[in-house]
Amino acid sequence: MVMRAETWLLPDGIQDVLPEDAIRLENLRRQLLDLFATWGYELVFPPLVEYIESLLTGSGHDLDLMTFKITDQLTGRLMGVRADITPQVARLDAHCLPREHTARYCYSSTVLNTLPQGLSTCRAPIQIGAELYGHRGVDADIEVIDLMLTMLKTAGVNQLHLDLGHVGIFRALARAAQLSSDVEAQLFDIYQRKSLPELRVFVADWPQKSWFLALGQLSGEVSILSQAQESLQNVPVLVQQAFADLAAVAAFITQSHPDVMLSIDLSELRGYHYHTGLVFAAYTPNSAAEIAKGGRYDDIGQAFGRARSATGFSADLKPLVDFKPDSPTRPKIFAPACQDAALTTRVKALRAQGHVVIQALADDKSTAKQLGCQQELVKTATGWQQQSID
Amino acid sequence: MVMRAETWLLPDGIQDVLPEDAIRLENLRRQLLDLFATWGYELVFPPLVEYIESLLTGSGHDLDLMTFKITDQLTGRLMGVRADITPQVARLDAHCLPREHTARYCYSSTVLNTLPQGLSTCRAPIQIGAELYGHRGVDADIEVIDLMLTMLKTAGVNQLHLDLGHVGIFRALARAAQLSSDVEAQLFDIYQRKSLPELRVFVADWPQKSWFLALGQLSGEVSILSQAQESLQNVPVLVQQAFADLAAVAAFITQSHPDVMLSIDLSELRGYHYHTGLVFAAYTPNSAAEIAKGGRYDDIGQAFGRARSATGFSADLKPLVDFKPDSPTRPKIFAPACQDAALTTRVKALRAQGHVVIQALADDKSTAKQLGCQQELVKTATGWQQQSID
Repeated sequence: MVMRAETWLLPDGIQDVLPEDAIRLENLRRQLLDLFATWGYELVFPPLVEYIESLLTGSGHDLDLMTFKITDQLTGRLMGVRADITPQVARLDAHCLPREHTARYCYSSTVLNTLPQGLSTCRAPIQIGAELYGHRGVDADIEVIDLMLTMLKTAGVNQLHLDLGHVGIFRALARAAQLSSDVEAQLFDIYQRKSLPELRVFVADWPQKSWFLALGQLSGEVSILSQAQESLQNVPVLVQQAFADLAAVAAFITQSHPDVMLSIDLSELRGYHYHTGLVFAAYTPNSAAEIAKGGRYDDIGQAFGRARSATGFSADLKPLVDFKPDSPTRPKIFAPACQDAALTTRVKALRAQGHVVIQALADDKSTAKQLGCQQELVKTATGWQQQSID
Repeated sequence: MVMRAETWLLPDGIQDVLPEDAIRLENLRRQLLDLFATWGYELVFPPLVEYIESLLTGSGHDLDLMTFKITDQLTGRLMGVRADITPQVARLDAHCLPREHTARYCYSSTVLNTLPQGLSTCRAPIQIGAELYGHRGVDADIEVIDLMLTMLKTAGVNQLHLDLGHVGIFRALARAAQLSSDVEAQLFDIYQRKSLPELRVFVADWPQKSWFLALGQLSGEVSILSQAQESLQNVPVLVQQAFADLAAVAAFITQSHPDVMLSIDLSELRGYHYHTGLVFAAYTPNSAAEIAKGGRYDDIGQAFGRARSATGFSADLKPLVDFKPDSPTRPKIFAPACQDAALTTRVKALRAQGHVVIQALADDKSTAKQLGCQQELVKTATGWQQQSID
């Protein structure tokens, strides 16, 4: 069967990674996983597929729609190809590694989405991320944000914008105002669309309308935090705590990452179905989509029978490789197709030192240049020597 | 929803890789990909899913049964989660990187099988391998066998048994004897079951029965090659060439890998539907299943409109990690939860040097020992110093 040209094409959002990009991706992957390791984050590889119940537990309807389903031929049960690694790490922390102390995990593996997510066109991102379990305080949020920014800078992203939010504020205000879940969902939708006129109409008759109107307008520089504390009076303790946490993160960023542009958006409810507290996303000037994001998700482990505080971040490794200039590569060395013990020894030694040596095969018409070599091994009076190819 | 215990369980043959194993897997992966790179094998990452036509082309019915199918929601077309990376590399070589010269590729990525294959219980192996395109001669087979054995020794596999075969011999004899494809398939099945009594009855009336009886008995040490040349008279030129190629590989192994036990089995038709020439598999004394295998598959690229000679090998990375003793790890260092600029500087410097430093969080009850630390940073008159934890 000779295939028609169109059957060669890959599905939309699915790409081959060819040698030049593959080696950059591999090098960056190693560099970032090594960074995570030095912060004490332990590498885990959750599986590519799981039974659908454990894969989707605690993660909401969005993830269900994003997940490809397959039937396990051994049991007839439904499995899913993971669309997100974070819930898998929650299962690991709760079930496989039930530690009482804080635990730090990191990962980098391919996930699969039924449809492209957000502004991305890719359906098979390489999700890289880190998660910190077992600590409820803002210190944990600060550590993962610090690590996320350090990761991005390590990847060569120099102009960074960090957007902070806190889904706990909206949750606590909705509860204090005794909104039904229907009304809460409608209000959530209005905030997501950032439609102020609609918001004014929707909350017009509510006793707590001042809260919800203020929330819809509270976005901008760090100064809006003090503005928020003025305009949101008599709010629940949880909301006051959220303000204090946001202020602590802002102070940390100002001190430790003064080059990072910071903004706060209290009506940004990113990952609302999944997150429970501080949420954050990093942007670059050239891209509308976030380049890394994360937040607190204290409730997710509960679904696995063990509630643990948790916060973390993730990114797609693929777009990150574009930020760093290529490091110079060592010249590739061509060796002729020659049965000479001295040449074999020399080739072995060069390879053991990390040099790339391509040895020609008998009757091979490929030239050293075609094979991408800049040097060749030439027999001289003093043995096999490396020489530049003109 | 609190999950029942059994919903936590992973499907049979699907595993989590927890920190201790994950880091060993990651280190071995890096070491082996670096080895391939020094031989001039370029890293590629073909995608996790493709349209089923391109995924299965040229690879036969076996792979179809092994492949999980999913429907592309963008087009309604059937996609498959790859069960084997080799056909993907053939597509890359034919379509994305249409070079005229020889080309060398390597890869390491997860594949997914509907059912456990052979003696393995794992349905999600990490397939690691290398492929050499564009050379028809036995030199190419020798290079990939050499690389496979070097890979296994690098992974710490010291007692190796290499089994050589050549599916071209059976193919050529079947063609010369003008067997119908039905009869060829029945004969193939008899060889696979190594049932000599059945073989004697099946070929009893054939003019070329001496060939097929001999073939069924030709397995053992290298000496059977000369025995084969005696007992298989008047065979096609292709068969004579196959004997010469097997002898060349055997001579190479004897000279360059004298520690490797070598055997030859001419009725072993491993990967018959896929391979076209020399086939080989490596075993260890403790395992009935092969630990790495490969062979020549000259026809596969033809399906993508470009016939190229090809040979290569692959292995599952997971069982390979068990052969090497763990290398000693650097001590982990605990840092207290302390807002001290000198401590922050010290922690950053240690991490930049590759040390693992876990910094405690405020009100964190986790002890240094619980966090796996063997050292801690302690404030002394001369600054923050590393001290061993008793």
